[in-house]
Order: sequence, then C-alpha cells, then structure tokens
Amino acid sequence: MFQSFTLTASPDHGSDRLSALRDAMRSRGLAGFLVPRADAFQGEYVAPHDERLSWLTGFTGSAGWAVALQDRAAVFVDGRYRVQVKSQVAEVFEKVDWPETSVPAWVAGSGATGVIAFDPWLLSLDQLRGFEKVLAEGQSLERSENLIDVIWEDQPAPPKGKVIAQPIALAGESIADKLARISQALKADACVITQPDSIAWLLNIRGSDIERNPVPHGFVILGSDGQLRLYMSASKVPGLEDHLGAQVQLCAPENLIHDLAQLSGRVQIDPATCPVAICDTLTAEIVEAQDPCLLPKAIKNSTELQGARQAHLRDGAAMVRFLSWLDAQPAGSLTEIDVVKHLEGERRATNALRDISFETISGAGPNGAIVHYRVTEDSNRPVNDGEMLLVDSGGQYQDGTTDITRTIAIGAVDPEAARAFTLVLKGMIAVSQLRFPKGLAGRDIDPFARAALWAEGMDYAHGTGHGVGSYLSVHEGPQRIAKTGMVPLEPGMILSNEPGYYKEGAFGIRIENLIAVEEAPALPDQNVPQMLRFETLTWVPIDRRLITPEILTAGERDWLNSYHAEVQAKIGPLVDSDAAAWLEQACRPV
Amino acid sequence: MFQSFTLTASPDHGSDRLSALRDAMRSRGLAGFLVPRADAFQGEYVAPHDERLSWLTGFTGSAGWAVALQDRAAVFVDGRYRVQVKSQVAEVFEKVDWPETSVPAWVAGSGATGVIAFDPWLLSLDQLRGFEKVLAEGQSLERSENLIDVIWEDQPAPPKGKVIAQPIALAGESIADKLARISQALKADACVITQPDSIAWLLNIRGSDIERNPVPHGFVILGSDGQLRLYMSASKVPGLEDHLGAQVQLCAPENLIHDLAQLSGRVQIDPATCPVAICDTLTAEIVEAQDPCLLPKAIKNSTELQGARQAHLRDGAAMVRFLSWLDAQPAGSLTEIDVVKHLEGERRATNALRDISFETISGAGPNGAIVHYRVTEDSNRPVNDGEMLLVDSGGQYQDGTTDITRTIAIGAVDPEAARAFTLVLKGMIAVSQLRFPKGLAGRDIDPFARAALWAEGMDYAHGTGHGVGSYLSVHEGPQRIAKTGMVPLEPGMILSNEPGYYKEGAFGIRIENLIAVEEAPALPDQNVPQMLRFETLTWVPIDRRLITPEILTAGERDWLNSYHAEVQAKIGPLVDSDAAAWLEQACRPV
Repeated sequence: MFQSFTLTASPDHGSDRLSALRDAMRSRGLAGFLVPRADAFQGEYVAPHDERLSWLTGFTGSAGWAVALQDRAAVFVDGRYRVQVKSQVAEVFEKVDWPETSVPAWVAGSGATGVIAFDPWLLSLDQLRGFEKVLAEGQSLERSENLIDVIWEDQPAPPKGKVIAQPIALAGESIADKLARISQALKADACVITQPDSIAWLLNIRGSDIERNPVPHGFVILGSDGQLRLYMSASKVPGLEDHLGAQVQLCAPENLIHDLAQLSGRVQIDPATCPVAICDTLTAEIVEAQDPCLLPKAIKNSTELQGARQAHLRDGAAMVRFLSWLDAQPAGSLTEIDVVKHLEGERRATNALRDISFETISGAGPNGAIVHYRVTEDSNRPVNDGEMLLVDSGGQYQDGTTDITRTIAIGAVDPEAARAFTLVLKGMIAVSQLRFPKGLAGRDIDPFARAALWAEGMDYAHGTGHGVGSYLSVHEGPQRIAKTGMVPLEPGMILSNEPGYYKEGAFGIRIENLIAVEEAPALPDQNVPQMLRFETLTWVPIDRRLITPEILTAGERDWLNSYHAEVQAKIGPLVDSDAAAWLEQACRPV
Repeated sequence: MFQSFTLTASPDHGSDRLSALRDAMRSRGLAGFLVPRADAFQGEYVAPHDERLSWLTGFTGSAGWAVALQDRAAVFVDGRYRVQVKSQVAEVFEKVDWPETSVPAWVAGSGATGVIAFDPWLLSLDQLRGFEKVLAEGQSLERSENLIDVIWEDQPAPPKGKVIAQPIALAGESIADKLARISQALKADACVITQPDSIAWLLNIRGSDIERNPVPHGFVILGSDGQLRLYMSASKVPGLEDHLGAQVQLCAPENLIHDLAQLSGRVQIDPATCPVAICDTLTAEIVEAQDPCLLPKAIKNSTELQGARQAHLRDGAAMVRFLSWLDAQPAGSLTEIDVVKHLEGERRATNALRDISFETISGAGPNGAIVHYRVTEDSNRPVNDGEMLLVDSGGQYQDGTTDITRTIAIGAVDPEAARAFTLVLKGMIAVSQLRFPKGLAGRDIDPFARAALWAEGMDYAHGTGHGVGSYLSVHEGPQRIAKTGMVPLEPGMILSNEPGYYKEGAFGIRIENLIAVEEAPALPDQNVPQMLRFETLTWVPIDRRLITPEILTAGERDWLNSYHAEVQAKIGPLVDSDAAAWLEQACRPV
C-alpha cells in the first residue's frame, strides 16, 4: 500500500522544539529563522529528511512556511489547510492566512529587529528578493546553517533512491537530441538546472528520492556545447553510464560548489527555483531565464502521447473495475479508507503501477467539499446512503501519469446536488469540445469551464486545469487552465480539465479528465491559420445517475453519449464480464 | 450633413512636400524628422490644423506615422489601411506594415546616422522612450519646432470651438464632487491632465474643437487641494464662470509652460499620453500614473446610464425608420452613399443629434469585408440584390453616445452567408447573457464572443468591444472586451459587443449592441460574493432573414425572441405606423 492513513506529526512537540530553535538562534545572535516547507528543489513533495516544517510545527500540508522570532512565531498556510492547521499546530504558533499575508510582509510588520537568518539552499532567488524588498528598518537577512538540522536529533538521512533509465521507447527522444536542442537554446555559456523533473526529462531517467514523483534529487550544469555534469552520488546511478552517454559526466555532489565557482562567462539560472546558495557561489555573470527544460518537457512528443494513451486505458480499466465493485457494495457499508484501499488495489492489480501519483482524495458527503481532503484514521467516515463520494486519484505508470476525478452517487442523491453536478459537467464538456486559435493561453480557456455555473451565481475557488508530466510530476508547468495561465497552449501539452462545485458542510463535486492539446484539422470555411483542440485521454464513465439531461444542450448530450460509447468500446474489452456488464449500463445514452 | 464623401488628400503633392521637408531638415542639420498622425492630445480625431500626416503624405487614415530621412521616407499604417495607403500615398514613401514593424525599429534599422528631430508636443513620454530604447549607433533624438508647420503655407489655424456646459441633470455629479474625489486620489501634489475627454468629464463641459468627439482642446493642472487651472483661451468658454465655480481658474494657454515650471513638490503625469514638452518643462519630481479621470469617467453614474438609455431609444427609433425605409427600396436601387445620407437624415430628424459619433461605415457586398471601410465618391458602389449590407454608425446626443452595427440582407442571400451570420449572432448573444464574477477583465469575456466561430475554424481580427463615453468619445478606455483587455469590468462601464466575420472579396458581417455592466441580483444557490451581468442598451431588430434558427440553442433562441419582443415594446410606440408595421414583422419570433 502506497498511501498511509496515519498522521506523522502532532502539536505535542511544537512548544519544546520552538524553544530549542530559539536557543539555537540566541546562541548565534539571531532575531529570527525562516522555515519554508520546500527543500532545495522547490517541488510539491519532500523527503523525510526535509520535513522540517512538519517536524517543528506539526503541520503536514504540502505547502507553507514557519517563522520563528524570539517573541513570536507563526505558521503560514493557504485556504486548503486552515481547518487542519488548528488541530496539528500548537498554540505557540500564530496561524497566518497565506498568501493573503505574505511571509515577508508578516516579518516586516512583526516588530522584530535584528538579523533574520535563513538556509540559502531552501530559498529561491525570487523568494529572497521578496524579503529584501519589504524588510523593515532595523531588520536584516543573513544566510546561516539550517538550525532545524542542528536541533533535530533523529533527522532522517537524505534520500539515496536508485535511478533507472526511462527507455527511448517510452521517452521518444534521445538524450543526445535533447542535449543538442536545449544547449543550443541557452541564453548563456552554461546553465544550472535545479528542478528534478527537468533533469529527469533531459537525461531520460527516473528516480525514487521522494514519494509520488519519480524524480531523483541532483543538480546539473549544462554547457552551451552540450556537455553536461550531473551532480549525483554514484551509488544512486549504478550501471547507467552507457545510457547517459559520453556527453554526461557524473560528478560527486560535494564538488558542485567548487565547480560552480569555477564557471566563467555567462551562467543561466531560473530565479523562480534556483537556490540562493547556488547564486551566491557563482562568480560568473548571471543570466536569469526560465528553466530551459520547462517548456520542452511540457510539450510531449508522439511517443510520450502514445504512452499516455496506453496508461490511461490501463488506468481506466482499473477505475471501471473499482466503480463496478463500489456499486455492488451496500450503501453505508464502506468507509472512505476502504474506498482508497480498494482503488489502490485495482491499480496494483494492473502489475504496472510504480506509485500512486498523489494521495487519493476520497471524500464522502461533507468531506467532498474539502478540496484537498486527505483521509486519515481520525477523519475517516462511512460513505452513507444518499451521499455523493468524490474520488480524485491517479497512478504513476512507466508509460504515463494519470489523474482522474469521479463523483459517485451512493444511493438516491438530492436533486439539488444532481443539478449542480450537471452544471459542472457542462463546463467540463465545454472545455473538452472547444476549438480555439493557436496562441491562446489557459486563461482564455478557463471561463468556458465556469460559464454554466456562473449563470447560477456559482463557481469554484481553484483552477480548471494543471499540466501533467509523462511518468513525472502530476502537477507540472508552465501551462495551466486558470486565471493565472498566461502561457500559450501548444500541441502536445497534457492538462487536466477538472471543474467542480463545493457546498461547505454538505457535498463536493469534481469531474476530471486529462486532455492533450492537438492541432485541429482544417475546416472548409476556416480563416484562422492554425486551430487547436483537445484530445481526451481519460476513458471512465461519468455517473449518469447524477445527470439532469434536461439542462444539457443537444450538443452537450451528443458529446456525453459519444464519450460513453467510446469508453464502452475502449474499456469493455479490458475488464472481466461482471465489470463489462456494469460498464454497459453505465455507458447507456442519456 | 456631417459626413463627407470626398477625399481631402491625394498622392499628387507627396513628392514636392517631402522635398520641402528635406530642405528644412538639411538647413537645420537634421538627418530625420518624425511625423505622427497624433496631435498634442493623442486622440482618434485631429483638427485640420493638425492634419500634418495627411498633408505631407496624402494618407487620411485615423492612425499612422511618417518618417522622413534624407534618403528614405516611409509611411506606417495598420491592417485597416493597407489597401487605401497604396492609392493615397506617393511612391516616394515606402509603405511599412505597422505595428508589426514599429516606427523606432524601422528608424534604428534605416541606416541613417545623425540627428532625428521631433516635435515634443506630439510624442508622449512612452513613445519617446520607445525610440530611446532602440536607436542605433550614430543616431540621436532632438526636440525641434514642427517642420511641417514651417513649410505648410496655408495650414489652417488651430481650432477655437466654443465650449458648453454639460448640465448636472445629464452629468449626474457636480464639478465640486468630481474635483474632490479626483484630487483626493492623486498620488502627488498636483497632476497635469492632457486628455480632452478627461477634462470634459471632470469639468462637465463639452467642446467642438474636432469632429465626432465633443471635446475641447486644453490642459489642466489639478492640485491635491482640489484647485484647478484650466488652460484654454477665454474666447472659447464665454459665460461659463458660474458653471465652473470658484475652484476652477481659467488661464491663458500661453501661461501653461511658465506655470508648469513653477510647480513644486511631486507632479503626476500619465506617460502614455502626456506630451514630452510638458515633461521637459516640469522641474518638480515626476510621478507616473494613469490619468486619474480615466477609470472614474468609464464608470458611468446612474444619471449617465439613464441618459444612455434615453439616447438609445431615440437612436433606435431612427434606426428602425431607416431600416424600414431601406427594406422598401427596390434591391439594387441604392448606393452605399445613399444609405449613409438617409441614415444621417433619420438621426437628424430626431432634432437631438449633435454630431455623428464616427464616420458611418456602409459596406455592400465585398466592401463589407473591409473592417474600417469609409465610403467615398470613388469607392461608392450600388447595394446589389443578393448582397449583405453592413452599416456601422452612431450618434452624439447630449444625453449619450450611440454605436450600432446591423448587417442587412438585400434580397435573397446565399445560405453560407446566413450560416456565418448566425454564428456571429451566437457569439453576440453569449456575451449579452453572460453572468460572471466581479474581478474579471474583458480578456476573460472575449472568448465567449468567438467560440461558435472557432468551432468552424473562423474568427475575426478585431476586439469584441470597446468602451463608450457619455456624450464623449465613442472609443474610450481603459476597459475593452479583447485579448488586450486587462482592466476588471465594473458596474457602470459601457461597452460595445460587436463580433463579426469577414470573407475577403465576398462579404462582411458584424452585429453590434452597446451593453452596460451591472450587478446581477443574487440567486438562491449563489456562492460567489458578487456577480455581474450586462444590461443591453441598443434596441434595434437583428435581421431575421439572415438567421438559421436550427443552429441556435434553445437558450439562444429564447434570448433572441425576448430581445425582439422588447425592441417591439420599446421602439414600436416611438415610430410612425409604417415603420411600426415593418417593426412588427421584423420582431416576429424565430
């Protein structure tokens, strides 16, 4: 079982550990210390070694900060975690609404004077600048060793996960070709790459240093001549010399600082993610630009897209087996955890599952309204008759990463909820069948997912879609379908399409397919040079019992019926006869 | 008749006048001279005195530039004018596609070295910076007198149009109240206001210095104490002292430079529109910020909105009389100019028309595909049987500015064109009936106007909507419904909603209503704090003969039929029995 249902932190130690941290600060003459959730790689998941925020405060969310001053201390969490933080974090920490209040602004207004210290590996250059811009009179910033590591006696060791090759049959482009095009596109003589999924993509490797994201921790220096130095302990990459090839030189991580200092000419870094420690070390002229792998990685090649299609058929069959099993259970007989366990079991039964792609969200009734709900032994509740069950889950397969949400009727559901479900579905269909001119960004697509809800004064407080990696991170940029999505969509990008609606204390609805941007074939009267559309990747029935067909347009009904016919045709042959019989019912036209 | 159909410029003089300009440059040791279309006020229309671009080159479009160098000269025009420029401008001028090639970039790449001169009243600070950023080695910029004014012997005098008061019954907010809220919102001790429509709005006055836009030329210095100096010749504002009140001091325009130089503390200017000459004169610290009247002027108060409704009923009745007359003429018996004349006649017959709000676009058949077509004696053609006629027009009334486009079937029209008309209509309806959360900008609305066209690979190469003034400019910022529309929409803003489709050499379609942003009443399941929607202002039938009802959704058909029922109810009582009978037919449900 990948997923666990126990909480690894509690408020009990908060007070003692904060005291220890303040002692360490005091002995160094420091007025404050910054504790971000992030590790040096700025990703969504961190290794146990890097769970400093959780160790200090008890807070286990996937984003946040803590700041310790001598007289005050605070934990910063976003809207997803405002309930959870109250039970996890001790009274000694103030709870601050973030990002409404930024960490720099809180520090500036804290009244503290003196030196605020931080670990330069854990702040990006942009984050440091955010502090420098607003610090108050009498406050200054200083790099320091990580004081949590100093006081954390049984801190786990850094991960040493093994690295494996992602074969060319799945990656679709050789390392040499990637090195050629990325090095040629550099804006400087060399580039430091610090994002693990960029490194994994560039070198056709996958790692196991953290859960859920199959990436290795390491750093890269890429020269404009295409020569690459990979800073990663040799014990993590046994026998990969042939795979990596002659252009790639494996270097000991402890040489990174020395080698960075030796770089001459111009050196490119991405200020959004590059640790301050690396920028500090560079003596060459720094050129700031986006990580050069970011966009090429987001634009999947035809092999990666083919892999995604295969992974989604496999994952769709597992989902259909899960849904048919779920329907066969008496209403009220299951808990949210039972649901998670059975679903992971169905994915494991494919014999191809490398990991789940994130912690499955299984929210029954009112828990469905908690957008990033993660069930634990404490929160677990039965899935009752008459409720909706929201299940958001995904798998990591070697040929692709999946992410799907279905909201399922348990028994007879309130017609009000079914009406809301249908409005959400209308938005999901609007995005699915949109054609649009090349050059538009996710921001231009996002409103179509919401218009049917807006007509009723309803909306959801999250983006419509995020980028998805190819057996990489399930959340990947730079593209997204959201008000903040300013990057033009390009053929080959994979995105989620997941509108929702949440009624606090009552129910939650989300319907999510993955979609891939593709060129739309030209039409007879076309006057636009290049049109794009979305290919649907996810093939799993949408619960007909929650659909109010009268409020669908003819076009929406056609889309739904043809989607279900295709689900039936693609997935039916992949499941046993019981599940196939269930599927046939689930795919009937509305 | 406001509109004229003769062209006032031709290519015949281009060569001689360019030679004269080059002589003037040479005698001053100048390598080049910049000739923008704009006057010191950066508006869409200029007075005959300021028609320097047209006098020099022959080009009569409403936007553009010329640059004269000793060996080369160029005219810069945008997509609207690329056909027209060929017949209007002599061979001695290169024709440059603008803004694809920017004027600064062309100058930088021209090969010229030496001093490029410009009139500092005609370039804004932002425009100057655009040149400074890219100038090539050996090139420099220098302020100079206007060399066109030096060589243009029979240059008309600057306008001295009379200024009248806009009564409080129509303006809805007193000058004192406006001065209080604008002066309190300044980011500096004083502000220089250079936009004529901002000044007209702030002081509840209207002018007659240029055609189509009822604004006076002048400048304002507003203090943060609410005291205002208006630089305008006293002969233009006879008897308005009481109207303007004690806070407003009328100053001779020739004192402006002296007074600007005397300002101390911090002085606010808008770099997008403030002439370089004003920035040069200021010795105080300059604070750059958007014109403080821009947003308040765009957000109409309830009196202005009530005026707009009245103006649109009056204008709608004139349009209905025009359309019923048009339908009664034998197909092929009219020319485009006949159409313009009759329409202006119907508006004049209201006895309330102060001006047309822009040159009426009357394009039959293929001329309809020229987005900013302006009929002249030379281009005039019959409106033939089987063609569509696109008529885009508007009136300036003291209570409001109108702008409406209707595309009309003349005889039996090709079903392909009717299908395209219906797709355009679907987009126009989508915007009309949209509800959306407060905070969205025009960019977020724009895609709804295009989605039905996109589904067929079709689109239009202009924005969907522009802001409209209150008896002011028919094109007004900062809001717009377009990919460049980044300003959040606010209740009270008036916008056009005018999707279109153009098939070059064949036909043009555009359907335009004006709409006003309003708060949407709360709905039972609403979970969004504040929703907005659009109130329709324009009440004129949309040609039923061009609608293919089968491709409308039920919701779209409902909108159309209810719109037509309201047109019938509102306009029927305002027209004579013949027009009323026509209207009843035109408003039948589809």
